[in-house]
Amino acid sequence: MVIELVTTGTELMLGNVLNTHQQWLCAQLTRAGWTVARQVSVADTAAEIAGAAREALSRADLVITTGGLGPTSDDLTRDSIARLLGKPLRQDARVLEHIRGFFAARSRPMPESTKLQALVPEGAKVLPNPRGTAPGLAIEVKPNPLRRGGASSWLIMLPGPPRELRPLFTDSVLPLLAEVFPPPAHHSSVTLRATGVGESLVQEKIERALRALTAAGLEIGYCSRPGQVDIRLSARGPNAANLVPQAETITRARLDKDIYASGDEELESVVVRLLTERKQTLALAESCTGGCIAHRITNVPGASLVLLAGLVTYSNDAKLSLLGVRPETLAAHGAVSEAVAREMAEGARARIGADYALAATGIAGPAGGSPAKPVGTVFIALASGRGTVALRQMNPLDRESFKQLTSQQALDLLRREILGYHGP
Amino acid sequence: MVIELVTTGTELMLGNVLNTHQQWLCAQLTRAGWTVARQVSVADTAAEIAGAAREALSRADLVITTGGLGPTSDDLTRDSIARLLGKPLRQDARVLEHIRGFFAARSRPMPESTKLQALVPEGAKVLPNPRGTAPGLAIEVKPNPLRRGGASSWLIMLPGPPRELRPLFTDSVLPLLAEVFPPPAHHSSVTLRATGVGESLVQEKIERALRALTAAGLEIGYCSRPGQVDIRLSARGPNAANLVPQAETITRARLDKDIYASGDEELESVVVRLLTERKQTLALAESCTGGCIAHRITNVPGASLVLLAGLVTYSNDAKLSLLGVRPETLAAHGAVSEAVAREMAEGARARIGADYALAATGIAGPAGGSPAKPVGTVFIALASGRGTVALRQMNPLDRESFKQLTSQQALDLLRREILGYHGP
Repeated sequence: MVIELVTTGTELMLGNVLNTHQQWLCAQLTRAGWTVARQVSVADTAAEIAGAAREALSRADLVITTGGLGPTSDDLTRDSIARLLGKPLRQDARVLEHIRGFFAARSRPMPESTKLQALVPEGAKVLPNPRGTAPGLAIEVKPNPLRRGGASSWLIMLPGPPRELRPLFTDSVLPLLAEVFPPPAHHSSVTLRATGVGESLVQEKIERALRALTAAGLEIGYCSRPGQVDIRLSARGPNAANLVPQAETITRARLDKDIYASGDEELESVVVRLLTERKQTLALAESCTGGCIAHRITNVPGASLVLLAGLVTYSNDAKLSLLGVRPETLAAHGAVSEAVAREMAEGARARIGADYALAATGIAGPAGGSPAKPVGTVFIALASGRGTVALRQMNPLDRESFKQLTSQQALDLLRREILGYHGP
Repeated sequence: MVIELVTTGTELMLGNVLNTHQQWLCAQLTRAGWTVARQVSVADTAAEIAGAAREALSRADLVITTGGLGPTSDDLTRDSIARLLGKPLRQDARVLEHIRGFFAARSRPMPESTKLQALVPEGAKVLPNPRGTAPGLAIEVKPNPLRRGGASSWLIMLPGPPRELRPLFTDSVLPLLAEVFPPPAHHSSVTLRATGVGESLVQEKIERALRALTAAGLEIGYCSRPGQVDIRLSARGPNAANLVPQAETITRARLDKDIYASGDEELESVVVRLLTERKQTLALAESCTGGCIAHRITNVPGASLVLLAGLVTYSNDAKLSLLGVRPETLAAHGAVSEAVAREMAEGARARIGADYALAATGIAGPAGGSPAKPVGTVFIALASGRGTVALRQMNPLDRESFKQLTSQQALDLLRREILGYHGP
């Protein structure tokens, strides 16, 4: 089955934004057992959109477009594609009702232009968009005059905003694909997530041990982000259901405690789950991470059961007054030191009354480094009923990657402590 | 001039990585005055690469490929393209010398397979790669048999690693383009960023007023994210340098205080800049945003000059003990209320001793709503020497978008207060 993506948007061609739809949609389709053959980006002009859709329809069983379904003058996908396929547009009463309700729920007036989003090409399926006003649209092009042999194709248009596109894809597109296309060849896949170990070391630890399985058809893929390596083990064909579990067992044995999750579970979700199961609570004392740990923890639904409070103590005064760090410790060791990290964690735990308290202090840069403590230096401490543990890390990265990696190291220190692994 | 990009890599099609080359190359070419017409991603098989290159060459004056120049078995771009163009590959002595030197400088043995990277299609220019072993390759396809009319094209192959591709592009490709292509038509562009107003309302406010300019060639583009609409005004040709500033003046007059930045400046950067200029300080009291405001503020270099401390007070106890919210206020109004938001802001300001304190309390969901205060309800308060202002918002979004939008509204409340706009 041939799948092509057409992502539209002048902002893509100007280099203003990253094409996150490509990665997300490709990953979802891969997980479901399909592979995307081609992805094309064009500006949102009628001619470019129609041209890219025409070419994709000449080759593919399924064409997915993103963007250009909104109410503004550069939203031309619906119109261009309806014209290309010779389908008249008709106002859909249920979509119009949904748009009215959307604005009513927000107590906002409904601009006249939003009614455009209720236009549906004749014969198209409407894919509801609970998070926005423009629905997705699915059209069976049958027969497809653009394809040799006249085989049929499906064309699915999705709205551009990721927070609308993603749930719509999961809730409506995947079930539709399962219904209208034959199931993909036996495909089995698992992703294991490791932390505290780099990509080349992961590869060194597992590839030799997996050699017999890769000879039999196992595929190994890696994807690394600051403080995280995803290992994707996959196989196709009748052997897939055996190969992948065997490979998972070997990989888990080799990487052991470095593996913190499978699938797409984030480290913050693991930590919230572990604490919730144990009815334990957490406090945070963040200096260099500046609220990044709290932000990640509170992205997890149910975080309010475990996170009592977080203190972002950027200034020395705040470290003294809010956390009870001692002035003599600050004077003797400086704000970026193991001693201060320990007092931050212990102070937060005592004052907030939590089972665990995590603290981080370091130099995110670009300024503030010294020969003894260059930019990237970090001290992380964790206080609990079993005492306080601390570690020093060196994360010489840009500011945002520094915060991401440091928060990952801090959350992993907590995960290992909760699980009794005793240190990283 | 028609430019197309072909980015190759199976990891792109599997959704393992983001296509950062697309954004980076498009941004560089836009800055130099050109526009990319199309970008295609394919897997790194010989057939897919040759197919994508053939189609791009049938349309474009310039085709740039990325990836597939390395020494491993899935590096097939050089070979596929040489075959497509009927150019034999010859070993280039200077490239081979560079590769030898590269390994020698690192005291590493030179694997035999790396010699492949010294193969150059007949007639190609070698673009040196000081950071790696595979050079870039530029071929003038003259005449181009794939194009109607037989016009000529250029095809440039770049290595995949960003740290190699980027300097090579800047040092060798841009000068080559300036030499072999006519200078691009006058191009002018500005992006204005608005907040506190939706995409359709922005359009209603400006498009009629800009009608004469769009008739003269002005292009308007929109890109919206939670709490933010980017308006891109651009034009080409001799008139561009007049049209865009006129359009900017009109747009600024219409949207007025809703515009918070131009270019790609983020709202948190604007706020940090305004506070820094005024030597003023900030404290945060976050409940429903869970550290998102602190995280955004501390992403800005120099944030430590303005942010004294942030308190993430998820639990009621933390609101009482850390912020001094009164138990009777909590009992009478509930944690999600204007009264509590005001006491959070005032408590944070008094206890931390900052010029401004921002507070947010609300229901992020998915659970916790009630008929009187459904999921999405938020109260934001800002305390300063001029008293306390508060506002109620309704943000019924998924959890992460809720936090992003609420933090945007809070930062905008602060921006307007600093600038003396008095309320949103």
